[in-house]
Amino acid sequence: MALDLKPLINPDSVAIIGASPNQAGHAGRCLANLERTGFSGRIYPVNPKYDRIGDHPCHPSARDLPEQVDAAYLLVPARAVESALEDCLDRGVRTVTICSAGYAELGEEGAERQRRLVERARERGVRLLGPNCIGVLNPVDSYVGCPTFNITYSHTPGSIALLSQSGGMAAALFNRAQGRSIGIRAMVSLGNEADIRMGELLDAFVADPRTEVIALYVEQLRDAEHFAAAAERARAAGKPIVLLKVGGSEAGRRTVLGHTGAMAGEQAVFSDMMRHLGVVEVATVDELLNTAYALSRLPLPTGPRLGALSPSGGECGYVADRASAHGLRMPLPTPDTLDALTEKLKLALPGNPLDTTGQVIGDGALLSEVMRIFTGDPNLDMVVMGIPTWGPYDSEALLPRIVEAVKACGKPAVISAWTARDLTERAEELLRESGVCWFTGSDDAVAALANLWRHAELARVPAAERPDPVALPRPAADALNEHAAKRLLAEGGVPVAAETLAADADAALRAAREIDGPLVVKLVAAGITHKSELGLVRLLDTVEEAEVAIAELVRTAEEENLDVEGYLVAERLSGTEIILGAVRDGTFGPVLMVGAGGILAEHFADRVFLPCPAAPEQVRAAVERLAVHPVLAGARGRHHDVDALVDAAVALSRVFAGSPWMTEVDLNPVIVGLRGRGAAAVDAVVGVAPRA
Amino acid sequence: MALDLKPLINPDSVAIIGASPNQAGHAGRCLANLERTGFSGRIYPVNPKYDRIGDHPCHPSARDLPEQVDAAYLLVPARAVESALEDCLDRGVRTVTICSAGYAELGEEGAERQRRLVERARERGVRLLGPNCIGVLNPVDSYVGCPTFNITYSHTPGSIALLSQSGGMAAALFNRAQGRSIGIRAMVSLGNEADIRMGELLDAFVADPRTEVIALYVEQLRDAEHFAAAAERARAAGKPIVLLKVGGSEAGRRTVLGHTGAMAGEQAVFSDMMRHLGVVEVATVDELLNTAYALSRLPLPTGPRLGALSPSGGECGYVADRASAHGLRMPLPTPDTLDALTEKLKLALPGNPLDTTGQVIGDGALLSEVMRIFTGDPNLDMVVMGIPTWGPYDSEALLPRIVEAVKACGKPAVISAWTARDLTERAEELLRESGVCWFTGSDDAVAALANLWRHAELARVPAAERPDPVALPRPAADALNEHAAKRLLAEGGVPVAAETLAADADAALRAAREIDGPLVVKLVAAGITHKSELGLVRLLDTVEEAEVAIAELVRTAEEENLDVEGYLVAERLSGTEIILGAVRDGTFGPVLMVGAGGILAEHFADRVFLPCPAAPEQVRAAVERLAVHPVLAGARGRHHDVDALVDAAVALSRVFAGSPWMTEVDLNPVIVGLRGRGAAAVDAVVGVAPRA
Repeated sequence: MALDLKPLINPDSVAIIGASPNQAGHAGRCLANLERTGFSGRIYPVNPKYDRIGDHPCHPSARDLPEQVDAAYLLVPARAVESALEDCLDRGVRTVTICSAGYAELGEEGAERQRRLVERARERGVRLLGPNCIGVLNPVDSYVGCPTFNITYSHTPGSIALLSQSGGMAAALFNRAQGRSIGIRAMVSLGNEADIRMGELLDAFVADPRTEVIALYVEQLRDAEHFAAAAERARAAGKPIVLLKVGGSEAGRRTVLGHTGAMAGEQAVFSDMMRHLGVVEVATVDELLNTAYALSRLPLPTGPRLGALSPSGGECGYVADRASAHGLRMPLPTPDTLDALTEKLKLALPGNPLDTTGQVIGDGALLSEVMRIFTGDPNLDMVVMGIPTWGPYDSEALLPRIVEAVKACGKPAVISAWTARDLTERAEELLRESGVCWFTGSDDAVAALANLWRHAELARVPAAERPDPVALPRPAADALNEHAAKRLLAEGGVPVAAETLAADADAALRAAREIDGPLVVKLVAAGITHKSELGLVRLLDTVEEAEVAIAELVRTAEEENLDVEGYLVAERLSGTEIILGAVRDGTFGPVLMVGAGGILAEHFADRVFLPCPAAPEQVRAAVERLAVHPVLAGARGRHHDVDALVDAAVALSRVFAGSPWMTEVDLNPVIVGLRGRGAAAVDAVVGVAPRA
Repeated sequence: MALDLKPLINPDSVAIIGASPNQAGHAGRCLANLERTGFSGRIYPVNPKYDRIGDHPCHPSARDLPEQVDAAYLLVPARAVESALEDCLDRGVRTVTICSAGYAELGEEGAERQRRLVERARERGVRLLGPNCIGVLNPVDSYVGCPTFNITYSHTPGSIALLSQSGGMAAALFNRAQGRSIGIRAMVSLGNEADIRMGELLDAFVADPRTEVIALYVEQLRDAEHFAAAAERARAAGKPIVLLKVGGSEAGRRTVLGHTGAMAGEQAVFSDMMRHLGVVEVATVDELLNTAYALSRLPLPTGPRLGALSPSGGECGYVADRASAHGLRMPLPTPDTLDALTEKLKLALPGNPLDTTGQVIGDGALLSEVMRIFTGDPNLDMVVMGIPTWGPYDSEALLPRIVEAVKACGKPAVISAWTARDLTERAEELLRESGVCWFTGSDDAVAALANLWRHAELARVPAAERPDPVALPRPAADALNEHAAKRLLAEGGVPVAAETLAADADAALRAAREIDGPLVVKLVAAGITHKSELGLVRLLDTVEEAEVAIAELVRTAEEENLDVEGYLVAERLSGTEIILGAVRDGTFGPVLMVGAGGILAEHFADRVFLPCPAAPEQVRAAVERLAVHPVLAGARGRHHDVDALVDAAVALSRVFAGSPWMTEVDLNPVIVGLRGRGAAAVDAVVGVAPRA
């Protein structure tokens, strides 16, 4: 059953368990907040120590509440939480927010107590928020349940839902947004997510008609599958998600055999998964807020072409630099537009950015006319009006005209105004009152517009129809050597290089003679994964060389006491080296990696991760994002067989998704030949999970 | 003679040429600014239209001034500038600031008029600032010469000199700094730099005893040589320079034959040159101010190890993420420190970042004790105290203790406080009064500390003793083929692969037979630079293959009607491919490039630029910054001959610096063998300048 937001974010009645008249501690702040922000519902303090708190009668226990309240806030110490929760459950409270800390965040013993709380609540059908959270704020309905005074007093309601696992950052985000007059629908602090988790809450806000944009502060996705489904529903509903991910490192959590494992850092996988889900990921607190703000105020751009206009040439240059850093384009306006501007602006050279020069400072009518011509240019998808640091004089004279132009132009258009305390207060007041989308400097403005375009791009990617998994049987052995790994993958449709596994040196030499051209000979030995490092892979040009090399390998095997399983002999393929791999990510499960191969692969970190199984169009888009893509796509006149690479990657993703016994796969490299020549793995590592 | 700052930034007397009582235009604002900010010198308005302006008698012309003023501001339109300047020169004005626009920024005709102004001034020994600038501000001496009202009214003097080519951004930077109470020594807007340029002004502020840090906003370095020398003097004087560079693209300005030219984008070269000069380059306006601020307030750290402490776990995680993004390390404190913290903090798990949990909110004495222990830890070089968004209650209770801890610890320590309008005003007031270094969020705090460390690192790089240039004679021909280019470079000490230039196919085959192993055969033809793209480079394994390949090359030459100059035959070297190159940069002159070679080189943009000639230690440091460095330095057990690569690069840099007729050199690739095997260029392009 879907989570009911009503009792959580807009309750008719609230019980404060552990309420206190002492506002120095957090137990006293919840009640004070509800009162000072004008909560219209019924409030019930609960604490056996007091008869009354302020104007409210105080109840000794939740069992004594006069009604089944929508929401109870538990502010008691951890040791008293269990019995307070029982009282709430017995009295039929609808939702319980446990602010108390001292649970899973302190280790396994706390996690165990946390699990017991959830079990008890689930038995009674009651939903829990927290523990270790600061609860809920809802400026739209004047409900401030948070037990902290560090929350702005006057609120700007809006359409952005702010969901945060961290309580401290939830408050910082809410306050910073409100200080900028960025309207908030509700803020929810999820804490340890014992019961209610990000994915379920996301679903609830996607369904909420008052919510238009969702901003997330995430430390760890505990319900990635639900989250992914909810993100897809958000995309279908046209509600953008902006996300800031912090913390955590999975170093050492994975068994790493191949290079894929070493390269699959938590953050790299996370970011690529977010892109696949259509989520706009950002790096900083202000970028999160500014992006959500732009998404809540502006129409979506139809392209990445930015126009910038400013009476300051310096500002023009700065905006152009920031736009380039964020990947936006700044094309010239059409010749018609340039002609029209030239006629108006006698002291300037029209272009983009458009430096109007100071001539517009004393001539508001000219400014208006120039803005009208510029914003209407068909080569521009978005517009930023960059104003210098303006005191009251120039603000009064010109800002209203700029606001008017931004409102009239019908494109995503913003005002960037460098703010400075003791100078720009009047400008800020005018901008806040205007209702336009504005920023306190052009860094923020350009970053927000770039993310607006990023969202517009992600929003129009059609949902991929993903292929079915392919199950391969678990091998009898506990480990697979290179040859066995390749044969198994080939059964699942993954293309591998043709090769002979020769039992001994004589058989290897016979196989080499049959090839009669550049070839490779490898010694396969039990327990040896990284053959190159041990000199067990030999690239050879002639049969004579092969003879010498095989003799050397025999000697090495004797000297090093290797358990020889055979000699792999194969033709040397020519093409570009790509690495394909797959790992089981702690958060997202099976993920595929496509990246640049060869000795430089790890150092350049040129790779993209995808969900398994992956659709061909997803793989193709991933390959196109690689830095090595131009090489594949025909640099120096060599067009490679990208279709074959895509097919190989899809096949691997299906096999890995369908064969849970595989811990990881590393095909390093896959040689991608020229167009029509196919692609084939020339090395393969398949990790086998230990038997239960 | 060094520039005398006194009449420019702290004049005893100022004439305002073109002064006006109308404060709507900029001609009226200069006088108003001087008066409202309490300038203590003598002020002389000049304008034939008025007898008086305000309390001041107005003079018809600069010729009528009652004294030889230190500074004249020219606010008249461009067409009246020349005669106004003549008046000033005749009256013996010491410095002239030309605010008027309409010069080089509009094109060649304006540039010509600009040159005439400078000529006239130089004849009389008078210095010019501008044109197209907003002049000078000096809060230390209460001198505000700027003709704009968009300047904060009350000023915080300080030790940061702010020099900007853009007037609009100069004002934005000054105002934003002052709004944050970042103290400024002086702001100078340089405009078009007709006379006074960045390098000379930099020198003057390095010599100014009131200046401790210099912040630069640069659009184009017009005096790179002087600038470089001044930057070296600043480094010697211990005065940090922070620089923000915007704008401009040199696309198309260079003739590009090789890959070096294609990769030597203006910004990439600029950034690498700044690093060599010890200048800290930043990307945004706020980073520029915050970095200068930190440098002006804090001692230098002795390492990159950051400690972070916060009562919010969320803030702790966020700071750790930002620190990692900025390349700072966050090691654990020593076991002694951890034990001491464990004893004090009963509800927390001590570490770094140190999440004190909310237990310190109600217990200031505990907070003080914990901060004392943590900041004293020997594993930490810098400390950030991250406070959540605090309203007045918690601010009054705890901020003074945090300020005290930061002041007492003797390390670079800052406070980061998430600010929000209508909530944190009291906190900001306390912080402004405190005198500590503080930031309005942890993004800015961590970025500033990272730059503090960057400066500390750059400051301790000893000045390199650069080798002498080596002059090579200009060839008789207008172009050099590969073989000729190599032979010439070899004369200058650049190692190139041994090869034979065979005149015809028979001679080529004889040379191939002598090699008897993997080899390369190239067809050299007049006017053909990119042989690979045309299939004229053949990598071969046997003499038989060579025979076939040579026959094919002969056929190709006939079919394509190539002007064959011979066949290059050489042994195939094995090793890692590096690209060495050199170009003449529009700003910095001859620069050397060292980068990853091979087909992927351009796509990964893994390269470093250096000045020519380059010292061995400079080249070695550059090689160590390459992403490909781990491959050279022994990844997979293969240690390459980095010494030989360094020698090759130094030799190239000396030759290029000493041979001005070379437009560019491109050695792509240089094969770097294993240790002891040397390095050699296997391809070479040398551009020859057209004859004058």
